[in-house]
Amino acid sequence: MKRRDFLSKAAIAGLAGGTALLAGCQGEDKPANQAAAPAQVNKVVKWRMVTTWPPKFPILQTGAESLAKKVEEMSGGKMVIDVYAANELVPGLGVFDAVSSGTAECGSGSPYYWAGKDPACQWFSAVPFGLNAQGLNTWFYSGGGLDLWDEVYGQFNLIGRPMGNTGVQMAGWFNKEINTIDDFKGLKMRIPGLGGKVVARAGGTVVLLAGGEIFTSLERGVIDATEWVGPLHDLRMGFYQAAKYYYTPGWHEGGSCLDVMFNKDKFMALPKDLQAILEAAAAQTNMEGLCEFEARNGAALEELITKHNVQVKRLPEQVLADLRVMAREVVAEEATKSPMATKVAASFNKFQEQWGAWADVSSRTYFDTIAERYA
Amino acid sequence: MKRRDFLSKAAIAGLAGGTALLAGCQGEDKPANQAAAPAQVNKVVKWRMVTTWPPKFPILQTGAESLAKKVEEMSGGKMVIDVYAANELVPGLGVFDAVSSGTAECGSGSPYYWAGKDPACQWFSAVPFGLNAQGLNTWFYSGGGLDLWDEVYGQFNLIGRPMGNTGVQMAGWFNKEINTIDDFKGLKMRIPGLGGKVVARAGGTVVLLAGGEIFTSLERGVIDATEWVGPLHDLRMGFYQAAKYYYTPGWHEGGSCLDVMFNKDKFMALPKDLQAILEAAAAQTNMEGLCEFEARNGAALEELITKHNVQVKRLPEQVLADLRVMAREVVAEEATKSPMATKVAASFNKFQEQWGAWADVSSRTYFDTIAERYA
Repeated sequence: MKRRDFLSKAAIAGLAGGTALLAGCQGEDKPANQAAAPAQVNKVVKWRMVTTWPPKFPILQTGAESLAKKVEEMSGGKMVIDVYAANELVPGLGVFDAVSSGTAECGSGSPYYWAGKDPACQWFSAVPFGLNAQGLNTWFYSGGGLDLWDEVYGQFNLIGRPMGNTGVQMAGWFNKEINTIDDFKGLKMRIPGLGGKVVARAGGTVVLLAGGEIFTSLERGVIDATEWVGPLHDLRMGFYQAAKYYYTPGWHEGGSCLDVMFNKDKFMALPKDLQAILEAAAAQTNMEGLCEFEARNGAALEELITKHNVQVKRLPEQVLADLRVMAREVVAEEATKSPMATKVAASFNKFQEQWGAWADVSSRTYFDTIAERYA
Repeated sequence: MKRRDFLSKAAIAGLAGGTALLAGCQGEDKPANQAAAPAQVNKVVKWRMVTTWPPKFPILQTGAESLAKKVEEMSGGKMVIDVYAANELVPGLGVFDAVSSGTAECGSGSPYYWAGKDPACQWFSAVPFGLNAQGLNTWFYSGGGLDLWDEVYGQFNLIGRPMGNTGVQMAGWFNKEINTIDDFKGLKMRIPGLGGKVVARAGGTVVLLAGGEIFTSLERGVIDATEWVGPLHDLRMGFYQAAKYYYTPGWHEGGSCLDVMFNKDKFMALPKDLQAILEAAAAQTNMEGLCEFEARNGAALEELITKHNVQVKRLPEQVLADLRVMAREVVAEEATKSPMATKVAASFNKFQEQWGAWADVSSRTYFDTIAERYA
């Protein structure tokens, strides 16, 4: 049962192809300081949200439901959003098109699922060795990232907002020790997206598997390794029963952003108060989602170690350095694949350089003073 | 002019004394999923917010104003909050009492300013070598921290919510190099609060100065060192003209939380939609404030280094280790000073241990892969 729940996520995560529609884009006006349009008063606005997640999927689907609840509360019942998990109204793979066309007024997933629409989407989720959660949020809210997101999604009549973040993911579960970059040669690993392209460049064999097939494949040796999310979701998948080593850090997903997307026409037609409420609910859910990931991953890690004797291992520094060189090549190539990808990558890289220097002086250095090396 | 602006902050930061009022406390009910009370419809709720900040103080005062703007937008003009900087309605030192008594309906500052009311307040801002911004938010939203905050502030008819965070501050500006813990002996340093108690324990002479007096005192050698905030605010103070070394990290304030406080009776009397709007506006401003700090500190650090040739130095590992031992003693003593402080510190410490293990495996390790050592 549990494993089947993850099918949709995995199917989505393996998504590729599609056509970039480079139509004109309009900037989104921020809600102005004005009262609700009188015509809308006392009229309940009913919206549907379609998601890429299985029902009850922790933090991701429950986060989408939490956003809907907040909007109803803040609007005093003037706006009600019904949330549908993957396949309840449209397939997980169909969320982007459903919201773009207005079949559903809003949706939730993660931008990199829509790399086939425009490769630029990937920078709004995560790129290997890219910004972590705090870096991404800073880029979005104070570094021009959200304007670029508006521009990319605007091509598809969409508006996207961050609505959660996984935090740093784990590198994955391995049945072979990784001591040098050569240990990736011939390694059969389930890892989608840009991370998969890096592993392929390192000589690995990238295997695409639906969520429900991963555990058995790992257990039977069909694959040697798999990445998933972090301790909370990995514990539920039972991977500790099928793999020896649990490697950190998730260099391929150092903080993956989850999103809410609105049909732009429908959003712009809302009174200003409901627009502001949607913006605030997204921001509140964004922060709460990351916090829930951080807290529950902490508890799950403890359980994996103390109850299931999981060995947490760090990828050797040189392996990470080698992967980083390859990742930069992969990401740079990806940035040439559409005009928006080029523009977004340039902003992202410039921001990461300046913010990274400060983060190194501040956050990283402070971490060194409060954390004892664990593993 | 500019230096005078900081007077209020510094006066507040030096605040001590006062009486803990250990009255009964009531938990705050989360807004339920219900429509606005009909009686309140079409009636504009006018509130006043008093703050501890000077007018236009970047991110802190402007953040308070941003919250008010959001509330007005989301409520479609049903709720209007007028924001008053320190001394415009009540002195910065009077904010807590003004909101507690209902003279103003809400206020903004940072919880540790009110250590004299209950020492427990300090854990909601920052304690030396304590949780950073992400850790604090995780404790608040997913680790029971906010319930404890409700309990502590409830004693004073207040409700507090995080409304921003400075991120990791800098250790300060020094005219003497710090190579061993002995270099603190006889060091005359302006550093308030718990950080000051640690420096005193290390043999330093803690000097209390109003904001407007710091620059001149540093320049003339009346003090050897001072802490302030981070690159953005420090640059505005011109400290680079008066001190040789800019030390990191801010072990005494690894991420100081700014807050909004509501008069509890007035908050509970609001219709549920406005309560939910205040909660969301606080959360949104909380995240945006940290992002603005991170982005602008990054730009200011670059300016300090490239334009003003500032030398950024890391405190040696052993110095930090020694300070940490003393800090733990200071914080443990502080935790005995009120029943609530004992309770809050226990929750904080337990949370920091579990979350810290995960943060070390994830965030800290990922930082190692994306950041090049700067200094």
